[in-house]
Amino acid sequence: MSVDTTCISTIRTLAADVVAKSNSGHPGAPMGMAPAAHVLFSQFLAANPKNSKWFNRDRFVLSNGHACVLQYTMLHLLGYKLSMDDLKLFRQLGSLTPGHPEAHHTDGIEVTTGPLGQGFANGVGLAIAGSHYAAVYNKPDFELINNFTYVFCGDGCLMEGVSAEAASLAGHLQLGNLIVVYDDNGISIDGHTNIAFTEDVGARFLAYGWQVLTVENGDSDLDAISKALAEAKAEKNKPTMIKLRTTIGFGSKEQGTHGVHGSPLKADDIVALKTKFGFPTDKKFYVPEDVYTYYADVAARGAAAEASWTASLAAYGQKYPKEHAELTRRIAGDLPEGWEKTLPVYKPTDAAQASRKLSEIALTSLSTVLPDLLGGSADLTTSNLTKVKGSVDFQPPSTKLGTYAGTYIRYGVREHGMGAIANGLAAYGGIIPFVGTFLNFVSYAVGAVRLSALSGHQVIWVGTHDSIGLGEDGPTHQPVETNAHLRAIPNLAFWRPADGNETSAAYSVALKSKTTPSVLALSRQNLPNLEGSTIERASRGGYVLIEEEQEDLTIVSCGSEVSIAVEAAKKLKEQGVKTRVVSLPCWYTFDQQDQEYRLSVLRSGAPILSLEALSTLGWERYSHEQYGLKGWGASGPYLKVYESLGLTGTNIAVVGQKVVDFYKKKGGPVVSPIVRAL
Amino acid sequence: MSVDTTCISTIRTLAADVVAKSNSGHPGAPMGMAPAAHVLFSQFLAANPKNSKWFNRDRFVLSNGHACVLQYTMLHLLGYKLSMDDLKLFRQLGSLTPGHPEAHHTDGIEVTTGPLGQGFANGVGLAIAGSHYAAVYNKPDFELINNFTYVFCGDGCLMEGVSAEAASLAGHLQLGNLIVVYDDNGISIDGHTNIAFTEDVGARFLAYGWQVLTVENGDSDLDAISKALAEAKAEKNKPTMIKLRTTIGFGSKEQGTHGVHGSPLKADDIVALKTKFGFPTDKKFYVPEDVYTYYADVAARGAAAEASWTASLAAYGQKYPKEHAELTRRIAGDLPEGWEKTLPVYKPTDAAQASRKLSEIALTSLSTVLPDLLGGSADLTTSNLTKVKGSVDFQPPSTKLGTYAGTYIRYGVREHGMGAIANGLAAYGGIIPFVGTFLNFVSYAVGAVRLSALSGHQVIWVGTHDSIGLGEDGPTHQPVETNAHLRAIPNLAFWRPADGNETSAAYSVALKSKTTPSVLALSRQNLPNLEGSTIERASRGGYVLIEEEQEDLTIVSCGSEVSIAVEAAKKLKEQGVKTRVVSLPCWYTFDQQDQEYRLSVLRSGAPILSLEALSTLGWERYSHEQYGLKGWGASGPYLKVYESLGLTGTNIAVVGQKVVDFYKKKGGPVVSPIVRAL
Repeated sequence: MSVDTTCISTIRTLAADVVAKSNSGHPGAPMGMAPAAHVLFSQFLAANPKNSKWFNRDRFVLSNGHACVLQYTMLHLLGYKLSMDDLKLFRQLGSLTPGHPEAHHTDGIEVTTGPLGQGFANGVGLAIAGSHYAAVYNKPDFELINNFTYVFCGDGCLMEGVSAEAASLAGHLQLGNLIVVYDDNGISIDGHTNIAFTEDVGARFLAYGWQVLTVENGDSDLDAISKALAEAKAEKNKPTMIKLRTTIGFGSKEQGTHGVHGSPLKADDIVALKTKFGFPTDKKFYVPEDVYTYYADVAARGAAAEASWTASLAAYGQKYPKEHAELTRRIAGDLPEGWEKTLPVYKPTDAAQASRKLSEIALTSLSTVLPDLLGGSADLTTSNLTKVKGSVDFQPPSTKLGTYAGTYIRYGVREHGMGAIANGLAAYGGIIPFVGTFLNFVSYAVGAVRLSALSGHQVIWVGTHDSIGLGEDGPTHQPVETNAHLRAIPNLAFWRPADGNETSAAYSVALKSKTTPSVLALSRQNLPNLEGSTIERASRGGYVLIEEEQEDLTIVSCGSEVSIAVEAAKKLKEQGVKTRVVSLPCWYTFDQQDQEYRLSVLRSGAPILSLEALSTLGWERYSHEQYGLKGWGASGPYLKVYESLGLTGTNIAVVGQKVVDFYKKKGGPVVSPIVRAL
Repeated sequence: MSVDTTCISTIRTLAADVVAKSNSGHPGAPMGMAPAAHVLFSQFLAANPKNSKWFNRDRFVLSNGHACVLQYTMLHLLGYKLSMDDLKLFRQLGSLTPGHPEAHHTDGIEVTTGPLGQGFANGVGLAIAGSHYAAVYNKPDFELINNFTYVFCGDGCLMEGVSAEAASLAGHLQLGNLIVVYDDNGISIDGHTNIAFTEDVGARFLAYGWQVLTVENGDSDLDAISKALAEAKAEKNKPTMIKLRTTIGFGSKEQGTHGVHGSPLKADDIVALKTKFGFPTDKKFYVPEDVYTYYADVAARGAAAEASWTASLAAYGQKYPKEHAELTRRIAGDLPEGWEKTLPVYKPTDAAQASRKLSEIALTSLSTVLPDLLGGSADLTTSNLTKVKGSVDFQPPSTKLGTYAGTYIRYGVREHGMGAIANGLAAYGGIIPFVGTFLNFVSYAVGAVRLSALSGHQVIWVGTHDSIGLGEDGPTHQPVETNAHLRAIPNLAFWRPADGNETSAAYSVALKSKTTPSVLALSRQNLPNLEGSTIERASRGGYVLIEEEQEDLTIVSCGSEVSIAVEAAKKLKEQGVKTRVVSLPCWYTFDQQDQEYRLSVLRSGAPILSLEALSTLGWERYSHEQYGLKGWGASGPYLKVYESLGLTGTNIAVVGQKVVDFYKKKGGPVVSPIVRAL
């Protein structure tokens, strides 16, 4: 038996053993893709298992994340921080080997996959990042950045729209450093792919502008796999898809059927499998010593490659100290000294502006000191105001529309792909991606947004047109539920700034949050700069904008409704109702403040009324009474839409009075909703 | 000037005038697509403007909904219930001509469009529905159902993943009754499509198995348009895409640029336009009389077509009374007599079962009386348990895998496409679509789900694996925020039934709700049948499961956590803490009950503690204290995951005691959170 065959049989039998022990998981794809994994990791993938964060490593993404036993096995065999005991704890609580791969959880995992199609699109992001870094930092005499991104994916990933969006963009962008190995095994959970997926995948990818190669026998023709990967690397101006024909669950009695997709192999099947492969049938988790030895050599080559690169980086530093300083700062994930000073500061006398415009001003200012920012929009640039004036498009040079050093990505109308690509950009390191669309269409991309939050990717969403305030486009474009939705996602900062200083605060906190994504909900309409708002105060997520001693009422609000609350408070005061106003632009950030501070903002003693031109769901956490949308918005000039829904200073004053009367009549002390048993 | 040219110039100048008057909207695409609209509506579209609901009408979908001035104009000219005054109120509050077309709002609008890609996928649903009806009800001597679905779309729609998913499935399904006219104008909001969308769209659709035709001059070559549409109709075994090369904003000084995409034409440009077309420059909203006459003839032909069809339907009734009765019942949107009696009823002694299994039992039973049910899953059939045993796949006969009369759709891994297709199925009439995936992946499809709710499409989502209770798959697959998200969408019923009777109740209410979509969140794990649950009680959305006089505590819960609440209540009672348990499977339904009932369920007097194994956001509306997930779930056997998060009877009893103690110490009356000023 050749060592290659032994390695592959080891991967296959380990997959069967690991899934059998946990009695849960997917053995089929790991067994089918074992040859491709072996060839890729041993012959192609430039990586150092002893330092999984080496910056110029090739990136590997297992888009069909349910096949993670394959990835965990490779990581273990190559000597990443993943022991055989970890493999034995597959899918157990608290283990390093959860049911799907999680970034920032297991050494060597680049991105979180499992939700189908995400990894594919993350891969496009990683490849964009690589091209960008290469264009910015490589010099004629120093090819510092030249890594590839390899993606494994299955049929499921390619049926998902998110991968279609990303694939079309990758073709347009001519990403020669992206190589996708498509496990064309003809099987998905429901059975043979002929029941729902009969398109010509290769022809589709050719239409996208990809190179498409086919390996007819992915089960055992290692030369063909190797040749295809080499050919893929050689094509510099197109991403490559390798259609790899494999047999799912290769070696099992049920190979080639969906019976091996998502269920453990039976005990007798595993015995038969090992017999077939010439492996001892009485041993579980068996790794022949020469397999460890073989992969140790591979790992040593990786360590040597990093050492050589590190020396090269030092030499680069001698010749290009400025670029070197910037590059190493970015690799370290630090922000440059003094960047915060560039944040715009506003006075109440400054002109009212839409917060999308305030966002543009902030981005313009930040871009002068933060080359880390790599922005884009899903074909709404002039609405989202995400393009800094003078910035260059990220485009293949042949288009003459930009360069790979450009910092503005034209995503096309592809929100979900954009979100997943941004996760890949963030995962690459040293890039802070921001992406723009209407707030309502962040919903198209939430499959990616929740993975940003789960994985701790610092992605900034510029969600403009953040309420009925967008006016004429009407309810199809007006978010209602989006605030509740995004506030319910753990580790996601949803900001709705009320004015210029709050917008700067949102950027300030978002940029400092290295492992938390942020969604900035920004208005289409103009907002006045508020008396009492400062970057510092807003950076706490919530603060008292208008203070009153022994108040009768507090109105808590955010975004474009804060100025309506201020107007209502003024009217109420004229009527003798002392009204405080609290601005709460970011619940997530506010909740991180200490209890004492939070209670000083939302204090006991008087009823608290919330005000937001979206769903009221969740505001009960911070208020006794809620005013907002009970249904959909409407198409019309925005002031009329606001008026029709009672969102005016005059009406909120009436509502506030009603609340005050109700609580007076009710009697007894009014306790802050912040005061809780739990 | 030929009458065709006059008609087209009228459409173009009206588009310019209407958008100019509202000073908001998109004139470019309507002006570019005017010839195609004219040819389609006058020569092809079988429809009766005087009865927009004629069942065998051709369906028209404007997927690029921002171009709705075109659709509104056509509806007006053809004599639908849309006056010139309505056109003049374009994008004004309360008008019949909102910023994007809304189903159930404007006569003649089939589906709500604007969010890009949705209409395209809706069209696939409409075409599936037509094929299905034809297969079920047509007889060799009666081709009762033979309508086509025509979709107009633009570049934006084709960049979106949702349309890619639907297009791939439509090709697989060989939908010969689907014809898409792609406005290939090379322009999107950010500029020329060459900045982000350079794929070969035609080749892509060929790869999907479509027929692809090209009209080189869509601006004025009416014969070519007509020929292409005829050729599309003639292809019976493939959907057709017609690539129509047009000039956006045809006739404007800025034609062919993105300057005419989303902004009104300037006054002088409109004058020049009218001059160019030989139209009076001093008249606005000008429709030559022969244009009205021409379209009146078209409308008359449509009315005659319906009359002839109605006669045919009557003759069909003579020969096939049973099919006729069923067909006419479905067209009327009625449910058959006695269908509710088929709902399964459970006793507490019945075996514990997963609610996904209870759902399967309900569907199996309901299917015997409800041919209206057209189900499917996004490649998770054996997990969602959505396929009724013995049901036939909806497949093209040539595949030999099913027939068009089949009631089970293999959607593939295409959640967003599935959701949007289901909207099309519902919009067709007489079909109640249900669709399955993991609850977590309903998030992939929310772009479609919120449009179900906005449009009032009765779609039933079978969202299984509804919490951390799915166990080993881990946090990538475990919903956390999904409950808050879906509960915040207006006109959407989110159900988390706790047992068999509650699952039947969920189906009962969902099937009766003709204009409200439902999402059923169902467990992977077994749930005991609860003492006290009945279909009738659960049908109110919330009810008292365990009653106690002068209670110390109420625990309100739903889904798989209700039995944990029951266990906690028992333990608390043993400790002398009288604890009520309220089951609240559907907030939306509960909120529709009268205040007296709701207050009897969630009454004042003792603290209320909520319990759900998802985000707590929003539970503040129904409880004083909340227990649930503060972060992500985890991969592991589900009981261990529950235990690690304190979701056990024992721990909830401890939490309950803490709540009781807290409120005792606080003193004063405890008022129900239902009691509100607003």
